[in-house]
Amino acid sequence: MATPRSSVVDTSRSLHARLRPVPIGSVHLEDAFWAPRLRQMREVTLPTQHEILEETGRLFNFRRAAGKETGDFRGIYFNDSDVYKWIEGCAYALADEHDGTVERLADDVIDQIAAAQHPDGYLNTYYMFDREKDRWSNLKDMHELYCAGHLFHGAVAYHRATGKRKLLDVAVRFADHIDATFGPGKRPGTPGHPQIEMGLVELYRETGEQRYLKLAQFMLDERGKGVIGGSNYHQDHAPFRDLPDVTGHAVRAMYLNCGAADLYMESGERALMTALERMWRNMTERRMYITGGVGARHEGEAFGGDYELPNERAYSETCGAIANAIWNWRMLLATGEERFADVFELATYNGSLAGIALDGRHYFYVNPLASRGGHHRQRWFGCACCPTNIIRLVGEIPGSLYTTSDEGIWAHLYAQSTARIAFGGQTVTLVQRTDYPWDGVVRFDVTPESPGEFSIFLRIPGWSEGAHVSVNGERAGVRVSPGGYFELRRRWESGDSIKLDIPMPVRAFVSHPRVEATAGRFAIKRGPIVYCVESTDNADADVWASAMQLGSPVRTQWESDLLGGIVTLSCEGVLDDAQAWERRLFLSVEQTLGGTSRTLTAAPYYAWDNRQAGPMTVWVRGRGV
Amino acid sequence: MATPRSSVVDTSRSLHARLRPVPIGSVHLEDAFWAPRLRQMREVTLPTQHEILEETGRLFNFRRAAGKETGDFRGIYFNDSDVYKWIEGCAYALADEHDGTVERLADDVIDQIAAAQHPDGYLNTYYMFDREKDRWSNLKDMHELYCAGHLFHGAVAYHRATGKRKLLDVAVRFADHIDATFGPGKRPGTPGHPQIEMGLVELYRETGEQRYLKLAQFMLDERGKGVIGGSNYHQDHAPFRDLPDVTGHAVRAMYLNCGAADLYMESGERALMTALERMWRNMTERRMYITGGVGARHEGEAFGGDYELPNERAYSETCGAIANAIWNWRMLLATGEERFADVFELATYNGSLAGIALDGRHYFYVNPLASRGGHHRQRWFGCACCPTNIIRLVGEIPGSLYTTSDEGIWAHLYAQSTARIAFGGQTVTLVQRTDYPWDGVVRFDVTPESPGEFSIFLRIPGWSEGAHVSVNGERAGVRVSPGGYFELRRRWESGDSIKLDIPMPVRAFVSHPRVEATAGRFAIKRGPIVYCVESTDNADADVWASAMQLGSPVRTQWESDLLGGIVTLSCEGVLDDAQAWERRLFLSVEQTLGGTSRTLTAAPYYAWDNRQAGPMTVWVRGRGV
Repeated sequence: MATPRSSVVDTSRSLHARLRPVPIGSVHLEDAFWAPRLRQMREVTLPTQHEILEETGRLFNFRRAAGKETGDFRGIYFNDSDVYKWIEGCAYALADEHDGTVERLADDVIDQIAAAQHPDGYLNTYYMFDREKDRWSNLKDMHELYCAGHLFHGAVAYHRATGKRKLLDVAVRFADHIDATFGPGKRPGTPGHPQIEMGLVELYRETGEQRYLKLAQFMLDERGKGVIGGSNYHQDHAPFRDLPDVTGHAVRAMYLNCGAADLYMESGERALMTALERMWRNMTERRMYITGGVGARHEGEAFGGDYELPNERAYSETCGAIANAIWNWRMLLATGEERFADVFELATYNGSLAGIALDGRHYFYVNPLASRGGHHRQRWFGCACCPTNIIRLVGEIPGSLYTTSDEGIWAHLYAQSTARIAFGGQTVTLVQRTDYPWDGVVRFDVTPESPGEFSIFLRIPGWSEGAHVSVNGERAGVRVSPGGYFELRRRWESGDSIKLDIPMPVRAFVSHPRVEATAGRFAIKRGPIVYCVESTDNADADVWASAMQLGSPVRTQWESDLLGGIVTLSCEGVLDDAQAWERRLFLSVEQTLGGTSRTLTAAPYYAWDNRQAGPMTVWVRGRGV
Repeated sequence: MATPRSSVVDTSRSLHARLRPVPIGSVHLEDAFWAPRLRQMREVTLPTQHEILEETGRLFNFRRAAGKETGDFRGIYFNDSDVYKWIEGCAYALADEHDGTVERLADDVIDQIAAAQHPDGYLNTYYMFDREKDRWSNLKDMHELYCAGHLFHGAVAYHRATGKRKLLDVAVRFADHIDATFGPGKRPGTPGHPQIEMGLVELYRETGEQRYLKLAQFMLDERGKGVIGGSNYHQDHAPFRDLPDVTGHAVRAMYLNCGAADLYMESGERALMTALERMWRNMTERRMYITGGVGARHEGEAFGGDYELPNERAYSETCGAIANAIWNWRMLLATGEERFADVFELATYNGSLAGIALDGRHYFYVNPLASRGGHHRQRWFGCACCPTNIIRLVGEIPGSLYTTSDEGIWAHLYAQSTARIAFGGQTVTLVQRTDYPWDGVVRFDVTPESPGEFSIFLRIPGWSEGAHVSVNGERAGVRVSPGGYFELRRRWESGDSIKLDIPMPVRAFVSHPRVEATAGRFAIKRGPIVYCVESTDNADADVWASAMQLGSPVRTQWESDLLGGIVTLSCEGVLDDAQAWERRLFLSVEQTLGGTSRTLTAAPYYAWDNRQAGPMTVWVRGRGV
């Protein structure tokens, strides 16, 4: 059963967090976008992932470590983390809605994990038996601390969702072991792949054990001292507080920033927020895809330089977009500033969600923004971080709609739903009726148990223009500035209603002139959704060879039977004359003016590659402006 | 003194060459484009390069090998090649015009080279003394055969230019040594860096020694057998005749093709031409920059995949464009097909010529098609292949204007000049009066010693449209098809004149839709010249942030005092509002429609980075089409 404590990042008692979470279990989604995905996660994704965890030896490794099976360790040395992330996904699913099958599977896996723990508390199935002597010998590369961090997260999430302590106890024992090993006066150390920082903070939040918080702080402070080699790749080239920009391995960079944001919310140390703010600006102003994806380079799975954002050669790992989303969620909790919700939303609906197929069982690791038709989602990967990450993000959605603060209730994401939010000593029921993200009209029914004065903060997305709000039919705000929260403070009573109207015109975007990869081309967004053109929507044409007629009217069309229900966009376009290009690399403008006028149809980027394979591009050429 | 035999590629007796060369010494350039460059080469470039050859130990290495100086070998193991290439450059300069200083310098260097030759004929200053035992131990990496090839070229060129045999004798001794070492029944072997193939063929042409031709053929045939490791990088992944495309290290690929084209002209083996044709199509249709530069990737100095043509990250080594030019020159000699002259011209005037500064003493190695302002020519490089290559190409220009065939005289490049061409047992004087490449009107005065019937073939560039020809004031051809040679066959007599008029409108080009790096942008060409926009011509604006108004009239302006005399192009343009982009990575089209209307001025790409440093781009965004 879901408990009211099933928060992903529990800032309830964090002194320096502006916002406090509303648990997953408090929000019931009834929309056409997320609710089916949550159901699919329970019914398809989690069970099939469990099969693959078994099939690929990931669970065998735990039984082997427990002495129940024999043979060699299977797979990659960080594969334990996938099991922990799957548990975390199960926890969020269970917090949202009870599912006996998922809970039984998870309980069984937890039993296997618990049995594998070494009597001294250590737990990593790779470093068992003959490898035991090599524990902690290579923090830079071997991911023991990373796996531990995921264990902590999974354990905390499962405890919050089910009330069951077994995995939490395992986590606590391992955390104690790590705390006894590393720290001032003990061994130096920091992870080559961050994750444990936020894991330890969350474990602290769940258990109240200050040592875990201190240990997380210690590991953050160890960076930049060369303990793990001093490379940019590892964000070890400078002390955290001095990092000038987002660099190196993108997921590591984002996870590290998550940990630092968590630490900030506990300690309030300004230097941490200053560094985070600096990196956030560098990322959002120079190193982030229009999808919210990050990590432009295949080489090192890394952030590129400023404005280095190739499309076909984009790396933009699914985990990178997810990590970007969860970092921004933390920044939002810390500050209550809407710009972080923008990036959270952007990276969630686009860069992250593209990582999973509509069938709930195929995944992208790499997310190019253009394809010649050969890039497809896979059932699994040797390094399977992305599949087990997307379930965590989707699972968190119910907990991402609202937060609270002393002043009232904050709405961040919009989706048809019923929420029962604990606030001011009572429960406030908020019913959202909306077709968001396909339409920007959101109606709220506000039902406090008893009338009371408090604020409702409505997010006015940074991408919007001309949003307006009315309460009980009366205009409350006209042309609200985008990129903020509109505060409705009043005495709320049962029967009150709010209407938020966020216009969602189709917009063509251009990139900063320094972005060479997209100069002279256009990307289409509507509301929070980034679009792309695929050949399958365009008579199998090579969409790389198409141009949109800029300024021509764009038709929006709700297609309930297409790709789970989407709004498609159509406008006038031109398709290059393939004949003209036969055996030619360059042609004069005059030679290409012909082409074929045709309707150009775009569909959401997150849904691409779910039908007939073919070329795709987010950035299209334009004519006429 | 120049001799009539100073041909760069002497196909006079090549059975399967369509065209025969007109020696450098037969053509005296009197134009404002090349003639000053040839003078500068004699007066500035060759002497300063000689100083650097000394300063960097390249000449020391020869004296050391001769036992005249002691100490360690200096520099890189293939540095001998730079000395040989410099000699070749001197030879072309001397073939064009006597220069006592250059000849003395060259003679002195040749003395040093000759003294360094081992009694057994071997010559490589790196493999001397304690390294002697390692001769030929690593053909893949160590460039001994490559250096030998450059020696042969330099020796042949110097002999043809000056009649002096000393270096030719050195070359013959070394070639005999190599021939005694490698071949059927001897050692297997082929160079990791091609060059010797064409060097041996030219040495055969100069000496008549068939063994050299056979040895070149042997080395070509050795490829694809794994003798040097079998990598794409070395074009050793398949037998030459099976190579599907241009791949791997670009300069190696082009030099190999030069050698194969030379072999074809001697043997007439169709399989060679078939492979060359296949690779030429792959290159020109998918892997060549609009400048004629090749080798898109920094990694491995290599050809990219199809349509992989990044701009800021272009490698496009100067040597690659030069190698492309000299391969196409050979293809032209072999076939008489105009399309090869197009690429020769394109790569010469643009991709290659950009490699040297207007001061004649600074060089590009890497030739990006866009720069943020930090890429500048250097005085020299540790690996200095490019500086000593550009002198060869510029030096060859007088020999590239004309060729002959049984039918008559062919004009390929246009430049104000006087040529005395041996044809049909007499000398035909051809005076060209033209401002090419800035204007497409070319007038010829034809003066045979005695009247005679023969053809004059005029190249009608593939980039042209609507060229027409008149003889003695009468229209001879109307709207001649571009991409061919217009044959004027008649009885020519003294006083005859030809007028060729090639219109040179400014043209904006677009790239094939698969070229992601330039999609949606435009490059400007006029005649054979590729243009770029530099901040220095545009009020120091960031030209990456500019767009040209497509379809707006373009003003051409002859600027005699600018960059050695150029035609600049100006059109209406728009400069993005920098304020609007402040701290933004993406903006909606509406937010960027403002901008500042302004004149956009473009100058030839080859001349960029000769003034105030700043951003540059070949491909600019457009508005209005």
